[in-house]
Amino acid sequence: MSTTFIHDNFLLENKYAEELYHNYSKNQPIIDYHNHLPPQQIAEDKTFDNITNVWINGDHYKWRAMRTLGINEKFITGDGSDKDKFLNWAKTVPYTMRNPLYHWTHLELARYFDINDLLSEKTAEKVWEQTQAKLNSDGYSCRGLLKKANAELVCTTEDPIDTLEHHQKLAKENFGVKVSTAFRPDKAILISNEGYNDYIVELGKAANVAINTFTDLCDALRKRIQFFHDNGCRLCDHGLDQIYYESYTEAEVNSTLQKQLANKAITNEEALKFQSAVLVYLCETYHEFGWVQQFHLGALRNNNARMHRILGPDTGWDSIGDYPQAQKLSAFLNGLDSKDKLTKTIIYNLNPADNEVMATMIGNFNDGSVRGKVQFGSGWWFLDQKDGMTKQLNALSNMGLISCFVGMLTDSRSFLSFPRHEYFRRILCNLLGDEIQRGELPNDMEWIGKMVSDISYNNAKNYFDF
Amino acid sequence: MSTTFIHDNFLLENKYAEELYHNYSKNQPIIDYHNHLPPQQIAEDKTFDNITNVWINGDHYKWRAMRTLGINEKFITGDGSDKDKFLNWAKTVPYTMRNPLYHWTHLELARYFDINDLLSEKTAEKVWEQTQAKLNSDGYSCRGLLKKANAELVCTTEDPIDTLEHHQKLAKENFGVKVSTAFRPDKAILISNEGYNDYIVELGKAANVAINTFTDLCDALRKRIQFFHDNGCRLCDHGLDQIYYESYTEAEVNSTLQKQLANKAITNEEALKFQSAVLVYLCETYHEFGWVQQFHLGALRNNNARMHRILGPDTGWDSIGDYPQAQKLSAFLNGLDSKDKLTKTIIYNLNPADNEVMATMIGNFNDGSVRGKVQFGSGWWFLDQKDGMTKQLNALSNMGLISCFVGMLTDSRSFLSFPRHEYFRRILCNLLGDEIQRGELPNDMEWIGKMVSDISYNNAKNYFDF
Amino acid sequence: MSTTFIHDNFLLENKYAEELYHNYSKNQPIIDYHNHLPPQQIAEDKTFDNITNVWINGDHYKWRAMRTLGINEKFITGDGSDKDKFLNWAKTVPYTMRNPLYHWTHLELARYFDINDLLSEKTAEKVWEQTQAKLNSDGYSCRGLLKKANAELVCTTEDPIDTLEHHQKLAKENFGVKVSTAFRPDKAILISNEGYNDYIVELGKAANVAINTFTDLCDALRKRIQFFHDNGCRLCDHGLDQIYYESYTEAEVNSTLQKQLANKAITNEEALKFQSAVLVYLCETYHEFGWVQQFHLGALRNNNARMHRILGPDTGWDSIGDYPQAQKLSAFLNGLDSKDKLTKTIIYNLNPADNEVMATMIGNFNDGSVRGKVQFGSGWWFLDQKDGMTKQLNALSNMGLISCFVGMLTDSRSFLSFPRHEYFRRILCNLLGDEIQRGELPNDMEWIGKMVSDISYNNAKNYFDF
Repeated sequence: MSTTFIHDNFLLENKYAEELYHNYSKNQPIIDYHNHLPPQQIAEDKTFDNITNVWINGDHYKWRAMRTLGINEKFITGDGSDKDKFLNWAKTVPYTMRNPLYHWTHLELARYFDINDLLSEKTAEKVWEQTQAKLNSDGYSCRGLLKKANAELVCTTEDPIDTLEHHQKLAKENFGVKVSTAFRPDKAILISNEGYNDYIVELGKAANVAINTFTDLCDALRKRIQFFHDNGCRLCDHGLDQIYYESYTEAEVNSTLQKQLANKAITNEEALKFQSAVLVYLCETYHEFGWVQQFHLGALRNNNARMHRILGPDTGWDSIGDYPQAQKLSAFLNGLDSKDKLTKTIIYNLNPADNEVMATMIGNFNDGSVRGKVQFGSGWWFLDQKDGMTKQLNALSNMGLISCFVGMLTDSRSFLSFPRHEYFRRILCNLLGDEIQRGELPNDMEWIGKMVSDISYNNAKNYFDF
Repeated sequence: MSTTFIHDNFLLENKYAEELYHNYSKNQPIIDYHNHLPPQQIAEDKTFDNITNVWINGDHYKWRAMRTLGINEKFITGDGSDKDKFLNWAKTVPYTMRNPLYHWTHLELARYFDINDLLSEKTAEKVWEQTQAKLNSDGYSCRGLLKKANAELVCTTEDPIDTLEHHQKLAKENFGVKVSTAFRPDKAILISNEGYNDYIVELGKAANVAINTFTDLCDALRKRIQFFHDNGCRLCDHGLDQIYYESYTEAEVNSTLQKQLANKAITNEEALKFQSAVLVYLCETYHEFGWVQQFHLGALRNNNARMHRILGPDTGWDSIGDYPQAQKLSAFLNGLDSKDKLTKTIIYNLNPADNEVMATMIGNFNDGSVRGKVQFGSGWWFLDQKDGMTKQLNALSNMGLISCFVGMLTDSRSFLSFPRHEYFRRILCNLLGDEIQRGELPNDMEWIGKMVSDISYNNAKNYFDF
Repeated sequence: MSTTFIHDNFLLENKYAEELYHNYSKNQPIIDYHNHLPPQQIAEDKTFDNITNVWINGDHYKWRAMRTLGINEKFITGDGSDKDKFLNWAKTVPYTMRNPLYHWTHLELARYFDINDLLSEKTAEKVWEQTQAKLNSDGYSCRGLLKKANAELVCTTEDPIDTLEHHQKLAKENFGVKVSTAFRPDKAILISNEGYNDYIVELGKAANVAINTFTDLCDALRKRIQFFHDNGCRLCDHGLDQIYYESYTEAEVNSTLQKQLANKAITNEEALKFQSAVLVYLCETYHEFGWVQQFHLGALRNNNARMHRILGPDTGWDSIGDYPQAQKLSAFLNGLDSKDKLTKTIIYNLNPADNEVMATMIGNFNDGSVRGKVQFGSGWWFLDQKDGMTKQLNALSNMGLISCFVGMLTDSRSFLSFPRHEYFRRILCNLLGDEIQRGELPNDMEWIGKMVSDISYNNAKNYFDF
């Protein structure tokens, strides 16, 4: 096989789908409103000497596939050479058919490197050479890659103690793609995590607040929110297995914090009350600042303790949880809404069995005040593939208004992931085109084209205050 | 766009589907065995002076869509004029594409009003005029609309304290569509609900029983069941988040009732035991009377306290729960079956993640005594759309016998909802036609046609004792 | 209707699918690595005097369908004649359209008996005669049926106390199909089950160990594992509602066993700790012996107590549970992995809502040491149908590597069930062929053909150490 299946009408199965994609979607700029790109690399406009550095290192999706095929860790995250790691990945690629990695791989080779070969052991050497040549040419730095992707804005994710120095530098330089940040305070909430007390010291330093009480903690977080806001931040993010929403008194949570800071044991119940209290304080504050808040719910993380000890978190040992989500999430959102402190909110679930819970939950708090105020987020992580995105789009359509959807984001750590927007847009256009052809939607290309443009770009542009 | 996509073969994608629908389904009368139509309006043969009164007022599906689009409550349930409410709904309609509202809207305009325009801001004035003219003409009263729908029977839902005066009047007048009732005693069960004691007083009056003990309560309920039965009722309905089935003694539940009637606090455990006891008593009594019992499981209701205070229940602030269902439901059905007191039963789930639990649960109690004795109910509420119905039909087919299915019901509060039966029938015929074409079913149109007729009409006719 | 829909290209909807199936799959031998065939009947090479004996007796799938249609138990498991039972099944068959029984029925009639009529009341007499004639001819004994199916190996399921005498006889005779066994020690684990103490006595006898302590129990189980291993066993199986994984001390579980053996009541908590301890001991021992372990999770069994009393277990009164699965399963696998004692593992779930939990869980422990070490098992029981298999294949593809999948097994008690492998293979080939046609996979028939051969045969051949 020497020619790829990635052609102009990839995933577009009829003329309506083609028209929708080519006329209404493909040229829209990209607002990648949530990802994990490293701002330092953008600020430094880092370049990459080979494809392994920009494509395989750090990509736990690829790592899991390689491990499943039986490849030794040496050639994944170990001390194997960059070239050997690439050769092992190339060997793995044909085995990934039907996994999104197979489509992503060839979309990325095509879009960034004009490579139309299928990657495999046979083509590996050639692709290594071709990509190396390109990476050493102009336009393949971090900034170059973002421009190549037609990104208008990318929003990275930072801890409250971050100095935002790279974002400040980027704001001054204004290289053509706006780089914003999202505030992610998980470490300030998870009081039972190892290293919590050290983190609180760091947070106190960053905020210039000595944190001895719950009030101090809130003050410190508010100062960091103000600092992030002053640096253009308008978005935050929380990664939680489930929403915490226990009732608590300030005395209780203050006492829990004292215990923890004194290295005394705290109970699970105390931890949950404390976490609830911090979460509520933060969300009320986000509302005050007019931010959008995001919740990523339902991951079961760090399942393999042995590998976690060796490689740390986010290295490919996470999976999908089956936690109950509906009641606490409802009570939590209602608690904020009752005080008129529910800000714009996006909810992402990792278990697709919860799709319909989420697709209907958002309607409980869409009260006419803001178009699409509460959003059901796009297929996340393991669900970021054709089947997962289709299910999310269908649940949202059947139980809400897809016309008001803010659409796709990469959530990625890689500069080469932006074709996932193209992938999403093609899937969206094909769903709509298919229904036009089958007569389930009227043949009103102008209106449906507008819907496509809105979901591709305009809705996010209007929803976020970047 | 001026012509609708609602044509003769809407949703029918091949000749087999067309033949099944047109020859075996479309002319079958409708048995709408569960809905929430207001019997008083039928008894009075109410007419409507404009489309808002019959179509938008009371329809929380439309309200949710309008709120999501950012429309002010004034034009939804507020003091906006009927005309303005309609204009706002018309503006919303194009944004509902892919939601069942879009199909329902145009099916209803076509079937009741012969309107083939797509509703939007542009066509709103014209549609307002056309519908108003029709509504002011003959045949558009409540009874006219039911006849237009080819309804043979509709079964409304009443509380045990209902006088059934409207049903009695309708039985005497016999206007061509039978109007039956289903007994829904949720208020007698939910002891923790606000106003429970007042309700018990009302129930006592209706039954002419002074309710001071659990035995009194049972007596009162039995008297009302007898009264409903004497008025032709053969069906009941329960709306529960989960089945309650705690073990209890009569002394315990009697004591709980005494406490409650004396306005003393009762624990959650006491409430669950009490609820279990009332539920078991009722279900044993239904069996004695030979009724069909229905359970609607899994809603998470009244999530938005602020709006609940303003608008009350059933106004669009409910969503899908993720409660465990299997174990209690199994134990409850088994408890009744073990005493040979399990009557014919229909179980509806709101979370589609439970489809397979329900589709297999019914088989545990289908013991050969009655064809299709325990039924997995049609896609309910949020699942009453093409995708939801398809999943219910597929789960039931794969794990049970779709040939024995009692089919569709509207569960609606609106006189204009009956085209949902047509929608269901088209989807059913298309599923079967598609499998004939693909060779997964034999080309035996006579047999498959019979299955279609049975699911459209005969199975319900034979199952219910209306 | 006189000709069946079971033709050469049944379920194969384009030329790619046809080519994949006919060139790469259909001639592959069958490794049926998990089933419940009775080894004694194979050892005796039993013959069947009529179709009821080999097809209806013992088949609770058919029984459930008949009961749902309202057929009296007399003609299902009762004292009706074999002929009458067959006639009642034949009458039921047309009502099973869209249930896998309809496809299985006609595949089995075609493949084993060359019967191409559709079974119904009309054809019943003819089919009865035809099948009886065949069953009384050569090649229709148990061994003949296995050979007809192109089985290379079948693996039955035995209790630890089994003598394996039939397997020993079969090993000596070597009739052309290897018959292996899987060790299934559920009865040694479930301490709260009726008859546990009697079972322990039996187990002690089989192992020649007086079981008075937890250590004795472990010794006895180890001896039986050794015995099974010496007889060629390389596989085990556990049927659990959920994985048990409570923390315990040996003193605790020893005390629990003492209590139980002394007929004293044990608490639910004690039982769970004990079950956890036995399970962990067993799994560590499987690892030592290099076996593959299987877990079948999520059934809700024996729901109908009345029928259970009459007919016993496995007679059609089971359904799908909705237990939480992820956290305990993760902790359990991690516990084994942390001690480097996690052997090759296959996990099957009964609730398809858990598909994605399982499809991602396996990746947590696929560490590169063995290709496809932890497997997400094929659609099981109620999920063993086109829709269920498709969902399993899609979840596995989207979240793992389908190329490494060990594929299909029957899990059946019937000698006529082997066409389910054909059914699976056709579905697999059609999924792939469809994606080639739609351009989602490249047109590389050689590679995709290799994937098909691997999933049909080679992966299982390499994975299991039969």
